Amino acid sequence: MIDLNMPLVEIKWFKGRDDATKARTIELVTKAICDATGCRPEDVTIIIHDVDRASWGRAGKPFG
Amino acid sequence: MIDLNMPLVEIKWFKGRDDATKARTIELVTKAICDATGCRPEDVTIIIHDVDRASWGRAGKPFG
Amino acid sequence: MIDLNMPLVEIKWFKGRDDATKARTIELVTKAICDATGCRPEDVTIIIHDVDRASWGRAGKPFG
Amino acid sequence: MIDLNMPLVEIKWFKGRDDATKARTIELVTKAICDATGCRPEDVTIIIHDVDRASWGRAGKPFG
Amino acid sequence: MIDLNMPLVEIKWFKGRDDATKARTIELVTKAICDATGCRPEDVTIIIHDVDRASWGRAGKPFG
Amino acid sequence: MIDLNMPLVEIKWFKGRDDATKARTIELVTKAICDATGCRPEDVTIIIHDVDRASWGRAGKPFG
Repeated sequence: MIDLNMPLVEIKWFKGRDDATKARTIELVTKAICDATGCRPEDVTIIIHDVDRASWGRAGKPFG
Repeated sequence: MIDLNMPLVEIKWFKGRDDATKARTIELVTKAICDATGCRPEDVTIIIHDVDRASWGRAGKPFG
Repeated sequence: MIDLNMPLVEIKWFKGRDDATKARTIELVTKAICDATGCRPEDVTIIIHDVDRASWGRAGKPFG
Repeated sequence: MIDLNMPLVEIKWFKGRDDATKARTIELVTKAICDATGCRPEDVTIIIHDVDRASWGRAGKPFG
Repeated sequence: MIDLNMPLVEIKWFKGRDDATKARTIELVTKAICDATGCRPEDVTIIIHDVDRASWGRAGKPFG
Repeated sequence: MIDLNMPLVEIKWFKGRDDATKARTIELVTKAICDATGCRPEDVTIIIHDVDRASWGRAGKPFG
């Protein structure tokens, strides 16, 4: 049975991944969501945001 | 009666819209929110995020 | 000409709007986005997040 | 080689998935991200947001 | 000199913090942002989102 | 007592702050969150998003 849950996935990571890695990520994450929930690939939307290391911090310090 | 609901609107779309289109979007969406809820324009904040087509996927594939 | 820009709109506001107001907001904001950009209504996605006043602050103080 | 890209994944979908489905989604999406990018599972963070159908619209109408 | 940068801060954390802790967080984070950037408290907006532990994962497993 | 609440903080502001201001913001906001909630600095993640003034509106008009 198809589960209509319309997943919207947003990924933030360090800037630097190329388009081929993004395409592979979109492909594999879509498949993972469908396997886990029973939804259809055409209902899965994925948006990737590249973030500078200087704009990402943990423990009070930026990563770059 | 004024409805103090402080709407914050974030819009993500494909990169490529120019500043005039952004200004027109900000104007019309603000008016739409006020018409629908009774809030004041000065309580509406709108932020637009431009996203590369290579970073946006559906059905397991990027749009560009 | 149709502009394929796939707008995704997220709205945050104070909890308390009923489903009819949400439906009216979805209708009017979708129309506003299409009028401003030339996209098709079926390409516009809108997600509304209700936020407690105690979880929303400005000038260092929560609204409720 | 390990790719330190610190992915943060946020998933929005219709309310109604149970905790077991969420756990399975977290497991499979983490694996997908690591397979696609070469990062370590412990660098992947996933947050799921449940959204009411009445708060999610497409083509100008709410889904529920 | 005042720096008009209009910071919008969104905080996600595990559900369970009470309103007094939220108010204290809003107060201290607003002050921190103003100290770091020179902006005015009335330009700082803060929104807090409570997230279930079952909806937050790291290393492929939910926290609760 | 340590409060494991894993705060994730995202800050949006006008583009133009330099890396030193970002580092100072990450340092002070992390400290503010820890002071307010009793969490550990290493559990606090901060992500900063720079936004063009032309993409940020209030009262129906962009800031720049």
